[in-house]
Amino acid sequence: MELMTTYKSNNYPIIIKNNAITELTELLKPYRDVVFIVDKNVEFALPEKIQQALSSTSSEQFTHILKVEGNETTKTFAVYQHIIEELLEQSITRNTCIIAIGGGVTGDFAGFVAATILRGVDFIQVPTTILAHDSSVGGKVGINTPQGKNLVGAFYRPTAVLYDLDFLNTLPYTEISSGYAEVYKHALLNGEEAQLEIETAFPDKKALESLVSLDKFLLKGIQTKLNIVIEDEHEQGKRKFLNLGHTFGHAIEYNQKIPHGHAVMIGILYQFMVANELLNTQFDIMHYINYFKNLDYPLEKVLDTNFEPLLALMSKDKKNDKSGIQMVLLKEIGKPKVIHVNNEVLEKSFATLQNYLK
Amino acid sequence: MELMTTYKSNNYPIIIKNNAITELTELLKPYRDVVFIVDKNVEFALPEKIQQALSSTSSEQFTHILKVEGNETTKTFAVYQHIIEELLEQSITRNTCIIAIGGGVTGDFAGFVAATILRGVDFIQVPTTILAHDSSVGGKVGINTPQGKNLVGAFYRPTAVLYDLDFLNTLPYTEISSGYAEVYKHALLNGEEAQLEIETAFPDKKALESLVSLDKFLLKGIQTKLNIVIEDEHEQGKRKFLNLGHTFGHAIEYNQKIPHGHAVMIGILYQFMVANELLNTQFDIMHYINYFKNLDYPLEKVLDTNFEPLLALMSKDKKNDKSGIQMVLLKEIGKPKVIHVNNEVLEKSFATLQNYLK
Repeated sequence: MELMTTYKSNNYPIIIKNNAITELTELLKPYRDVVFIVDKNVEFALPEKIQQALSSTSSEQFTHILKVEGNETTKTFAVYQHIIEELLEQSITRNTCIIAIGGGVTGDFAGFVAATILRGVDFIQVPTTILAHDSSVGGKVGINTPQGKNLVGAFYRPTAVLYDLDFLNTLPYTEISSGYAEVYKHALLNGEEAQLEIETAFPDKKALESLVSLDKFLLKGIQTKLNIVIEDEHEQGKRKFLNLGHTFGHAIEYNQKIPHGHAVMIGILYQFMVANELLNTQFDIMHYINYFKNLDYPLEKVLDTNFEPLLALMSKDKKNDKSGIQMVLLKEIGKPKVIHVNNEVLEKSFATLQNYLK
Repeated sequence: MELMTTYKSNNYPIIIKNNAITELTELLKPYRDVVFIVDKNVEFALPEKIQQALSSTSSEQFTHILKVEGNETTKTFAVYQHIIEELLEQSITRNTCIIAIGGGVTGDFAGFVAATILRGVDFIQVPTTILAHDSSVGGKVGINTPQGKNLVGAFYRPTAVLYDLDFLNTLPYTEISSGYAEVYKHALLNGEEAQLEIETAFPDKKALESLVSLDKFLLKGIQTKLNIVIEDEHEQGKRKFLNLGHTFGHAIEYNQKIPHGHAVMIGILYQFMVANELLNTQFDIMHYINYFKNLDYPLEKVLDTNFEPLLALMSKDKKNDKSGIQMVLLKEIGKPKVIHVNNEVLEKSFATLQNYLK
């Protein structure tokens, strides 16, 4: 299965299939330097896949292998500086391709290195998680700071995305459910039919854990995302819709140190609360609470924090402007809207959510 | 005098005149946050001009003022991280404009902050030196690493360039002659007539020091540069011509810790040597040595170093590829060419240059 982006120029292929990394051999031919930035967890779980990737360079090329932790400790200034200087020590040239093999962290991090080293070299995303079906497409790359997630970065398109489905087979359930949040988000952005279809396919943890027919929904998710980002690459308009669940999600992710997708799912739940409050929607909150509990999302984390630290984190969201905090709310399933939400509504919705979960 | 770039989209004005900074008032209106990154030297020399700039924001805007050293100590990871975190602490949003007031260092540095903070915010270049007529146009931004200059950065267009000629009046001669190297380089790229004209206008230090009619040549320099960078923004082809004098220049700049323009002028001289060796040109080396001495360039620095450390630095040049070191050479005045040069030729040319200067 191969998609091609449809920007005005500089398009790139997204190849989704088992054994997609065999494509590397052809893709890497033009480069003097080939840099693999590999998530240590992936190497540990699937050493033979990593070997397969590494064997796609020729003996005439300079091959550099860098291993990073597959968690947020990688997305720091310190690691960024370290990796950049290590590559420069090896005298890499602009004729370099960086290949990111790992989850969202590895892709975001390696992409930012690629975007800025020597003012930019080529890079290929090889996402190895379900979550990364989202982050590997659309060109957002970056690192974190003590002030919040992804606050330093760039919009920088990859040369190709190779989504090798073999990598998904060894994922622990936490990773699967974390990734599923973005797949589910894409379904909510698509409409009621998509929501019904995905909830039917994955009614509970057991179904989701099996991964059966997940590839179909991954593809739909990528298509949904592509349609949006191609129209609005730099997030000045509808790309903001993709932040559904992320305003509150990023805050609780940082505050409670939980996986990104778990936080996003909680953020989606919170968003229904705010919509019911502000837009007079009548979303069935218990439906979502039950569904997310069936899938084993840690909703109880909402009870472990006060509102103030979350508000402080939400105030640093990149989407905010002169008029304060902006959120993506669903007017109805499939109809997102970006809207300013004042602190009173935010606080009241948080209290309501806590009451539901008590 | 106002130029407008002619990219396919996202064009920006370049305004060159006395008191150009008065344009800020209008340009800054759309923003919630306005960040001034100011070169301390400029503030010291012309505090009233800085005050004038700062007074262009309204009381409803959040104004942030950050001062940086106007030298290469600013273009480091440490200062980059510090400034980014300081701005994030102040909860700036994407609705921010960063204004760089200073020389090339300030512009390069502030531009890289703008390119990467929150994945990119707007920025305005206010160059205050002659050298920065060059660096402020074309969108190259970045910082240095221990491995060399400008090895981390981006191509990121400003929203506007305000070249306020008032800033030039207090420059020391070292700054004037450093900046003149790029003006002269642009003339060499233009052709024999341009070379004759500029050498006639500025035959010696006294003429150059007066700055009389320099604005005319600055404008020509900017036009020459624009014509090239608009055609090849990301330096895949003819933009490389602008690196005339820079391969050897960057190496001796780093090695001897001399001003950028002085190093570039020495690099231009070295390039004539390599051209005579490799392309069978017959450039009159003594003409250039005499002219550069009349303008007080520190050519003797070439005698203070061996070839090896310079070669090591040249090997890290961003233009290099599979086949090794690439230089820009003049086939004739106005006719640049990018060409691979092997180490033997590089070393021989260095020895010849040293002999000329002994």
